[in-house]
Amino acid sequence: MTETALSPEQLQERLLDSAYNESLGLEVLTTDPKKQEVVMRLKMRPEFERLRGTGQWHGGPIAAVIDIAGTYALAMLLGNPLPTINLRVDYLRPAANTALTVVARVRRSGKTVGVVDVDVLNDAGNVVAIGRANYSTISS
Amino acid sequence: MTETALSPEQLQERLLDSAYNESLGLEVLTTDPKKQEVVMRLKMRPEFERLRGTGQWHGGPIAAVIDIAGTYALAMLLGNPLPTINLRVDYLRPAANTALTVVARVRRSGKTVGVVDVDVLNDAGNVVAIGRANYSTISS
Amino acid sequence: MTETALSPEQLQERLLDSAYNESLGLEVLTTDPKKQEVVMRLKMRPEFERLRGTGQWHGGPIAAVIDIAGTYALAMLLGNPLPTINLRVDYLRPAANTALTVVARVRRSGKTVGVVDVDVLNDAGNVVAIGRANYSTISS
Amino acid sequence: MTETALSPEQLQERLLDSAYNESLGLEVLTTDPKKQEVVMRLKMRPEFERLRGTGQWHGGPIAAVIDIAGTYALAMLLGNPLPTINLRVDYLRPAANTALTVVARVRRSGKTVGVVDVDVLNDAGNVVAIGRANYSTISS
Repeated sequence: MTETALSPEQLQERLLDSAYNESLGLEVLTTDPKKQEVVMRLKMRPEFERLRGTGQWHGGPIAAVIDIAGTYALAMLLGNPLPTINLRVDYLRPAANTALTVVARVRRSGKTVGVVDVDVLNDAGNVVAIGRANYSTISS
Repeated sequence: MTETALSPEQLQERLLDSAYNESLGLEVLTTDPKKQEVVMRLKMRPEFERLRGTGQWHGGPIAAVIDIAGTYALAMLLGNPLPTINLRVDYLRPAANTALTVVARVRRSGKTVGVVDVDVLNDAGNVVAIGRANYSTISS
Repeated sequence: MTETALSPEQLQERLLDSAYNESLGLEVLTTDPKKQEVVMRLKMRPEFERLRGTGQWHGGPIAAVIDIAGTYALAMLLGNPLPTINLRVDYLRPAANTALTVVARVRRSGKTVGVVDVDVLNDAGNVVAIGRANYSTISS
Repeated sequence: MTETALSPEQLQERLLDSAYNESLGLEVLTTDPKKQEVVMRLKMRPEFERLRGTGQWHGGPIAAVIDIAGTYALAMLLGNPLPTINLRVDYLRPAANTALTVVARVRRSGKTVGVVDVDVLNDAGNVVAIGRANYSTISS
């Protein structure tokens, strides 16, 4: 799988096929096929705020980037983004006045289901949310 | 709880306190404190599309509306939206060329944790996604 | 699907193919292919107790019966029990000095994934736990 | 927290307060308060088998040990086992003819909710299941 793995530039290009992904402004930082890990970054925008003027992230875009980072971690290995079967998000701490660094790591890439773990960190390096998702690899 | 329950208008007003909620365009249709149920509606927009021009919803805004409808179902009963502890979303069918009707029903409103089930339906009445979330009621 | 659906007796027989299921003492009460619903019952035993002598159920056997009821709800429709992909359990209330009634309802039986919701009730009819699980239908 | 953390012997003793835990035969191997990690071991028994004579673990006892290891990872830090709020289990591979090594690591120990990740490994060191659970720390 390592040889055919997508580079950050290729993954970024695929990411932008999706109108929703483009609207968020997600940026692919690194792809590491050996560690089966992708790192992305999402900057704060006024429309991502929970309460206006607080600088605090709403949980909605956090759930969305977890879903997206997970599918592109598998896409790095398998070539294409895959349909999400399900998603779990745990919110550990409020995230305020910070960009989000999103680290997605493949735990299992099976014949029908892929499982990915995602950690979301603030600029201080603290984990603000963690995600776990299943994707349908049969369509890959 | 029934007497102090928020009306659709009151819930809509609270909803718009959040910049993110306003950016989505969510509309509160009904509140039913007896059934502990809230119904919302979200229209399609180009920036919610998975692939451009397909009319298919990205999973990101679906996860977001599940989270939001869940917290406002509890807000109807307890007066205020509450922090999300965690969220699970199962995507059952693709949703395309349709608005989303979001039905959130409180399963348990305990002293520290509230549990809400959310069904997301397309215009044909088919369930396209289901959510289950926990909220921190201790702050209410 | 309705015509080939398994009866309670047939489902009970299949259930006992599993050594673990037999060790629990699960009993199939009803199968309803139209509602895509199976109801089972599990009596309390001393080895299911959280703390000795309290009569309170440990969460472990509750999670187990949710998993099992879910797979046999799909087995009723598809003929065979299926591998569990994942399972979520929410514990809503303590369950003490009661048998458990377990109601499993299929939400989606797709080509590769089946989704089942499970409610667990005490003898007073209160919901003590709820489960949601995914099963691999591709092997059916 | 490190100074008051429970030793493997103390944790094992607490574990046996529960009739269900004792019935499983769980053994505490190590406690590491610095890494916030507990390791347990569960040997195969005929009553844990999915199909008789296959040596394959049923998912039920795997879900149970994930739940238990999670609560005792928090108990190591906080002194007492805590009520489970919810539990997610993903089954990655069949586990057959092997004992289970269960590694539980605390991701967040907050004022009201604790979050724990659990990996379950076979004797070859492969991950067969992963769990994520929330516990109510307010009662600690």
